[in-house]
Amino acid sequence: MKQQPHVVIIGAGFAGLACAKALGNAPARVTVIDRANYHLFVPLLYQVATAALSPADIARPIRRILGRYKNVDVLLGEVTDIDTAVRWVKTSAGTVGPYDKLVVATGSIYSYFGHPQWMAFARGPRSLEDARAIRTELLTAFERADNAADPAERDRLMTVIVVGGGPTGVEMAGSVAELARYALARDFRHIDPRQARILLIEAAPRLLASFPQSLADYAQKELTRLGVTVMLGRPVETLTAKGATVGGQMIAAATIIWGAGIQAAPGVAMLGVPLDRAGRVAVGPDLSVPNLPGVYVLGDSAVTLDERGEPLPALAQVAAQQGDYIGRALAAQARGKTAPKPFRFHNRGNTAIIGRNAAVFDFGRWHLKGRLAWFLWALVHIYLLVGFENRLQVVAHWLWSYLTYERGARLIMPDAESPKRD
Amino acid sequence: MKQQPHVVIIGAGFAGLACAKALGNAPARVTVIDRANYHLFVPLLYQVATAALSPADIARPIRRILGRYKNVDVLLGEVTDIDTAVRWVKTSAGTVGPYDKLVVATGSIYSYFGHPQWMAFARGPRSLEDARAIRTELLTAFERADNAADPAERDRLMTVIVVGGGPTGVEMAGSVAELARYALARDFRHIDPRQARILLIEAAPRLLASFPQSLADYAQKELTRLGVTVMLGRPVETLTAKGATVGGQMIAAATIIWGAGIQAAPGVAMLGVPLDRAGRVAVGPDLSVPNLPGVYVLGDSAVTLDERGEPLPALAQVAAQQGDYIGRALAAQARGKTAPKPFRFHNRGNTAIIGRNAAVFDFGRWHLKGRLAWFLWALVHIYLLVGFENRLQVVAHWLWSYLTYERGARLIMPDAESPKRD
Repeated sequence: MKQQPHVVIIGAGFAGLACAKALGNAPARVTVIDRANYHLFVPLLYQVATAALSPADIARPIRRILGRYKNVDVLLGEVTDIDTAVRWVKTSAGTVGPYDKLVVATGSIYSYFGHPQWMAFARGPRSLEDARAIRTELLTAFERADNAADPAERDRLMTVIVVGGGPTGVEMAGSVAELARYALARDFRHIDPRQARILLIEAAPRLLASFPQSLADYAQKELTRLGVTVMLGRPVETLTAKGATVGGQMIAAATIIWGAGIQAAPGVAMLGVPLDRAGRVAVGPDLSVPNLPGVYVLGDSAVTLDERGEPLPALAQVAAQQGDYIGRALAAQARGKTAPKPFRFHNRGNTAIIGRNAAVFDFGRWHLKGRLAWFLWALVHIYLLVGFENRLQVVAHWLWSYLTYERGARLIMPDAESPKRD
Repeated sequence: MKQQPHVVIIGAGFAGLACAKALGNAPARVTVIDRANYHLFVPLLYQVATAALSPADIARPIRRILGRYKNVDVLLGEVTDIDTAVRWVKTSAGTVGPYDKLVVATGSIYSYFGHPQWMAFARGPRSLEDARAIRTELLTAFERADNAADPAERDRLMTVIVVGGGPTGVEMAGSVAELARYALARDFRHIDPRQARILLIEAAPRLLASFPQSLADYAQKELTRLGVTVMLGRPVETLTAKGATVGGQMIAAATIIWGAGIQAAPGVAMLGVPLDRAGRVAVGPDLSVPNLPGVYVLGDSAVTLDERGEPLPALAQVAAQQGDYIGRALAAQARGKTAPKPFRFHNRGNTAIIGRNAAVFDFGRWHLKGRLAWFLWALVHIYLLVGFENRLQVVAHWLWSYLTYERGARLIMPDAESPKRD
């Protein structure tokens, strides 16, 4: 009997997980490597950062998701080296290989535009640790403001800056505003959390660059209604532990949240192939890496062009569709079938939420905003959440929050990795 | 108008919280100091440690609970000194006082019987950080066992030692056994988690010393049925990063969980009064500290005697009843009424859970075990959980786990404080 091909997948995000599922029960041995034991539903991380959901609500063990596929093995480990000559992947939990096919889907991290030192002062919601650290920062700032004797210091503690007017920045700013204005409103004796200053700073002249202008205008109007100060056309010049400088003006702020731009996570550089400015690999129409037979790069680690020659956006739906495409292609190959057609992205609609009853949804031809978009946003996110229990819990939390305006996960649990602050 | 008396409460556990609630809307200014921003439902911590519940399910912001009482202020801070001469409490968030009445309810920590170095190898579930660290240890050990080449190392990784046969030890051992035998059972390719060795070690000749013999026998039988090896009459002699020595025999184990004994948390020593061997203050029948007018010590920090001269056990119900007693007494004093009768504990029944459909309940006259005790245990704990949303979420998690045998919070999220391990 012919030996089954060995497919190694690095990363169990949307791309890697979809690839592994599509290879489930195919005539191939599959090894999924991830440094976390869970698949994370990143689009809802901002809700963990703002105390609306618990980490376990948006994370599910990779083993549990893939447990039904007997040909899929899961390894908890951090990849330390990839040797494409001998086809081995080295990890903190030992060496894996040789592989016949290698799928790299290591995702993205925040980009600080040439200012890596800013990371210490402005965390972005990219991992559960990030989200917990932001939650701790936000809640601690209000606790300290309640106890602050100096009015200037109290104002600084009650100022939150969100950098970046894309979907992440809009969602963070809206959610922080709702936290302060509703959930925390009546719980303090010496401050009024409704007076908190929340600033959303975007270098471009408008919010939500990837959405139609009408939806961006709506988002700006709704954020303003929630009490967010939207500052457009001005980039952040410096970030320190004290605050941010914008347009030459220093804004003192205890909490700074980053959502301004992403780059590929550093893992993909181990392939030793040319990378673009954002650290990504330009892959072919079948997502393969030029001159590296049997190696594929997907999701936020790759640049792929659509039929008009435009790069595809860094979205979960792109990653998931690419993972599914490669998984099916490799499964077909393992069954001795021919290679499939080039990858083609099918846009399922682009969405961002501002707050209760307020979201935008862009389907290309249709633009949706307001309560219906918000309801659709909720439905889609519940549908996409992995695991039936996660769905039930998230529905219960949302229903509760919607009815009571409360937030259920207001825990200050400092991590060692929290940003350095005064 | 006469100045209202200032009551300072240190600790928002069962005792401190009940005291603050009883003083709610009384003619007194109340300040509650705690180093966490949440009240923790400690009796369910073992379920966080074994991935059944999330931290936020059993924790609720102290501010939220006390928000309706306008005379109660909450301070997030660690107490660093108590000066009973000038009646000030110094904290990491500033000085509080002068107080007219001081209520010390700082709770308990695990006691390692003169071996403080054991703490590094055997964590007990006493805080959310503890519970998360134990969860990470347990889940990481199975991940590493799945990837271990050496059979002896694999066996060590799949061995869990629980030290102490009281309610905590019984609940931990039973819950770890269910985690391995049901939730993890089918998710690994190279190990069978059902083969995990779980040992419960107790120095005394029987389990559950505070329960009737028949209930202890039942607990032992049920644990054995779940696959737990119960070792009685043998104390742990040494603990290291490799495992434990019991009866001269070394048992290699990757995970050691402590539940063997408690002592008062060190905060109460700041009062400068004599302490017993477990660090507790012997208080009078009105819970006051001899020779320190206006100072009261409650809950696990105090020794109080029942009508037969026996010390009251370190239970949540004792702490809560004492807190309520002192809160009412101080409220009556503030209203100019006379001192109440001495504190008297009303036993509401003592309970421990072994696993699904298996618990014990001791009401003094009645002894209950099995499915009915388990159902009653669940009802009581849901009823006692603070906050309506917490109740709903816990019911949903339990129902889900009961129907599917799964555990929803299987997240490995290492903390800086995790025990040091090989």
